[in-house]
Amino acid sequence: MEEFQVPFSRGLEGVPVAITAISHIDGKQGNLIYRGFPIEVLAQFSTFEETTYLLWFGDLPNKDELENFKRDLIEHRRIPDFMKECIGNIPRDTHPMEALRTCVSMLGCFDPDKHDTSRGARIRKAVRITAQMATIVAYAHRTRKGLELIDPNPNLSHAANLLYMLTGEVPDAETARLMDVILILHAEHGMNASTFAAMVIASTLSDMHSAIVGGIGALRGPLHGGANERVLEMIEEIGSVENVEPYIKNALAQRRRIMGFGHRVYKTYDPRARILKEYARKLSQKSGQTKWFEIAEKIEEVVIRELGAKGVFPNVDFYSAIVYKMLDLPKEIFTPLFAAARVAGWTAHVLEYLQNNRIFRPTSIYNGPTEVEYIPLEER
Amino acid sequence: MEEFQVPFSRGLEGVPVAITAISHIDGKQGNLIYRGFPIEVLAQFSTFEETTYLLWFGDLPNKDELENFKRDLIEHRRIPDFMKECIGNIPRDTHPMEALRTCVSMLGCFDPDKHDTSRGARIRKAVRITAQMATIVAYAHRTRKGLELIDPNPNLSHAANLLYMLTGEVPDAETARLMDVILILHAEHGMNASTFAAMVIASTLSDMHSAIVGGIGALRGPLHGGANERVLEMIEEIGSVENVEPYIKNALAQRRRIMGFGHRVYKTYDPRARILKEYARKLSQKSGQTKWFEIAEKIEEVVIRELGAKGVFPNVDFYSAIVYKMLDLPKEIFTPLFAAARVAGWTAHVLEYLQNNRIFRPTSIYNGPTEVEYIPLEER
Repeated sequence: MEEFQVPFSRGLEGVPVAITAISHIDGKQGNLIYRGFPIEVLAQFSTFEETTYLLWFGDLPNKDELENFKRDLIEHRRIPDFMKECIGNIPRDTHPMEALRTCVSMLGCFDPDKHDTSRGARIRKAVRITAQMATIVAYAHRTRKGLELIDPNPNLSHAANLLYMLTGEVPDAETARLMDVILILHAEHGMNASTFAAMVIASTLSDMHSAIVGGIGALRGPLHGGANERVLEMIEEIGSVENVEPYIKNALAQRRRIMGFGHRVYKTYDPRARILKEYARKLSQKSGQTKWFEIAEKIEEVVIRELGAKGVFPNVDFYSAIVYKMLDLPKEIFTPLFAAARVAGWTAHVLEYLQNNRIFRPTSIYNGPTEVEYIPLEER
Repeated sequence: MEEFQVPFSRGLEGVPVAITAISHIDGKQGNLIYRGFPIEVLAQFSTFEETTYLLWFGDLPNKDELENFKRDLIEHRRIPDFMKECIGNIPRDTHPMEALRTCVSMLGCFDPDKHDTSRGARIRKAVRITAQMATIVAYAHRTRKGLELIDPNPNLSHAANLLYMLTGEVPDAETARLMDVILILHAEHGMNASTFAAMVIASTLSDMHSAIVGGIGALRGPLHGGANERVLEMIEEIGSVENVEPYIKNALAQRRRIMGFGHRVYKTYDPRARILKEYARKLSQKSGQTKWFEIAEKIEEVVIRELGAKGVFPNVDFYSAIVYKMLDLPKEIFTPLFAAARVAGWTAHVLEYLQNNRIFRPTSIYNGPTEVEYIPLEER
C-alpha cells in the first residue's frame, strides 16, 4: 500500500458516509446514545419494542402508538408454512446465520408489499422483518436440534417470546427483562459494516429485504457479529481462572487477536459491555455457577493490564457471550440473536438514508497493467 | 445538507475505497479495461469463461488452464433438487431477482466448502456460484412462465447453455456469440454499488455466498442494474419514432430521468453501449424488425442533442435492453442476466480485497438531539 501517495482510508476509517440523527458514539468517553438517549437509560427503562419505535421514528411513542406498534409486531411473528419446510430441508450442519439469510430473502418473495416501494411499504416491511426474524432464529435453532417448532405466543413481549420460541419455556420476568436489555443494547451502533452494507444495497432503491439480507451476510463475519461466538470458544478453551494469565500472554506473544476486546470506535470501556457485565455478575451469583464469570473477569483484568494503554477494552461481544452461556443458549445462535436485535438499526438507517438518497458509488485506485496485448489462445 | 461544513461526499462520490488491479474506467475518454485489456478487444476475441478467469487470476489462461476452468464451470451447473422445488414454491409474481437472491443464499447452505474459509475454498465457491447463477436465472424464468425446467447441456459454452436453458433451444453460433459478448461487457465495472456491497460484506470475513447475495440485492435497484428493465418499458411506451421527440422533451421538462442515459463515471459515450449498439443494428437488420432499433437511435439523437453537453450519453443498459428485446427475452430477466455476468466481477473484487483485508467501518455525522430526557410512558 505504501507506494500510493493518495489520500486513501483503508476500510473507510474515519470517513463519514451519512448524516444521521439515529445514534451517536463517543468512542473516547465511551458513550452511546440512541436519538439522544444514553444507552444506560434505555437499558434501564425501555423495551425492545419501544426502542425500535424510537430508532425508526425519532421520538418515544405515546401509549396508543406503542400499543399499536406492539400489536403490529405480534401479528407478523408467523412465517409461511413453506418456509418452515425450507428450514427443515436445509442441511443440518448449516450455520443458523445462513438459514436466517436465506429465510429473510425468501420472506421478500412472500411479502404482500413486494411491489410497493413507498415509504409506508418500507416501514411495513421493516415491521414484518423485525417480527419474523425472531421466529426464524428460533426455528433455525430448533430444527437444527431436531426439536419441534413452537408457535409464537401473542401474550409475550418480543424478548420473552423469542426466548419462549427458542427454549419452549416461558421465561421468568427477570430473564425476559435481561433478554430485552440485550436486544436494546444490540439494536443499533452507527455505521458498522452490516448497517453500512444494508445502506449501500438500499441506495440503489432496491428493496428492504435485499438490504437486510446484506446486513445479515455482513454480520456473520468473525470481524463483526460472528465474534461473540468465538468469545465463548476462547473462554471454554481457557477453562479455568488459573489458565487465563498464561493463555492471554501466549496469545499476545503470538500476536493473536483476543476475541471480545478492542473496538474500531471505542478506545475505552464499551458502555454496553459495562451494562452486560453487571447482568453477568448477577446471573452468576444467582445460578451459583460462578466459574465462567470469574474467568471472564480475570481475562478482562489481564487484557486491560496488557493492552488498556492502547485503548483495548472489553466490547459488547465479551459479556454478551457470558450472559448467553449462563442462559444456556448455544453458541451458534449468539450471532443470530445479535441479528434479531440489530435489524432495528439496519432498518432505521435504511429508512433514514432513503429520505435523502444518493446511490453509493465510490471509486478505486487502479494499480494494474495498461495496454496489455491480447495473445491468441493457440500462442499462449 | 448545506448546513454541515464538513468534508462529506454523498454516496462516496470520488472517494477511493480500494486499490485494485481488476479494471479501470476512464470516464472522460470513455475507456474501460479489464486487467489492462480494452473491453473492445475482449468483446472481439474473448469468451465469458476466459474473461472470468482473467478477472479472477490476472492473466489470460493457457489452453490447459482454460480447459480445466471450463470443465469446472460445466460440472457445477446443476443445483440441488430441493432448490428447484423451492423455486416452484415461491409465489409466481415474485421478481426473478428475488428468486435469484434467495437461491444463491440457499446454495450457501448446500455448499460442500461452507465451513472452509481458505482462499482455495473461496475460489471454488466463486466457480460454483458463477456456474449455478446461470441455471437459477433460467429456472426462475421458466418456473414463472410455467415451463418445464431444462437440464444444463455440458457441450455448450456458458453463454450458449444459458440461452438454451432459458429458451429450450440451442442458439445458432451468431446468437451464442452475441450472448457471450453481452456477458463479457457486463462482467465487471469497478466500484459500482453492487460490487461495493459485496466487498463490504466480505470485509467482515463473512463468506462468498453472503457477499454475492448482497451484490444481487444491490443490483436489483432501479438506480443500478434494475434500470435495463425500465429502458425497454420506456421504449415500448414511446412506441414509434415520431413519438420520440415529444416524449423526451416532455420528460426533460418534467425533470424525469431518461432511463439508459447518463452514468456516474462516464461523461461521454459508454464504450459498452457503443459495442452493443452495433450488435443491435445488425440484429435489427437480420430480423427485419427494425422499429425498436430506429426508436432507440432516435432517442439517442434527441437526448445527446439536449443533454450531451452535460455529459449525458447512452449507457450499457440502453442498448443491452434493445438487444434483449430482439432476442425475444422478457424484461424481467434483463437484470438477472446482468447479475449472471457481473458475478464474475463481484467475486473477483472479493477475492482481491480479502488478500489485504480491512473491514469497512466508516463513520457518520450526527445531527440528532443530545441529552433528551426519558419521560415515563404514563406521562407521554
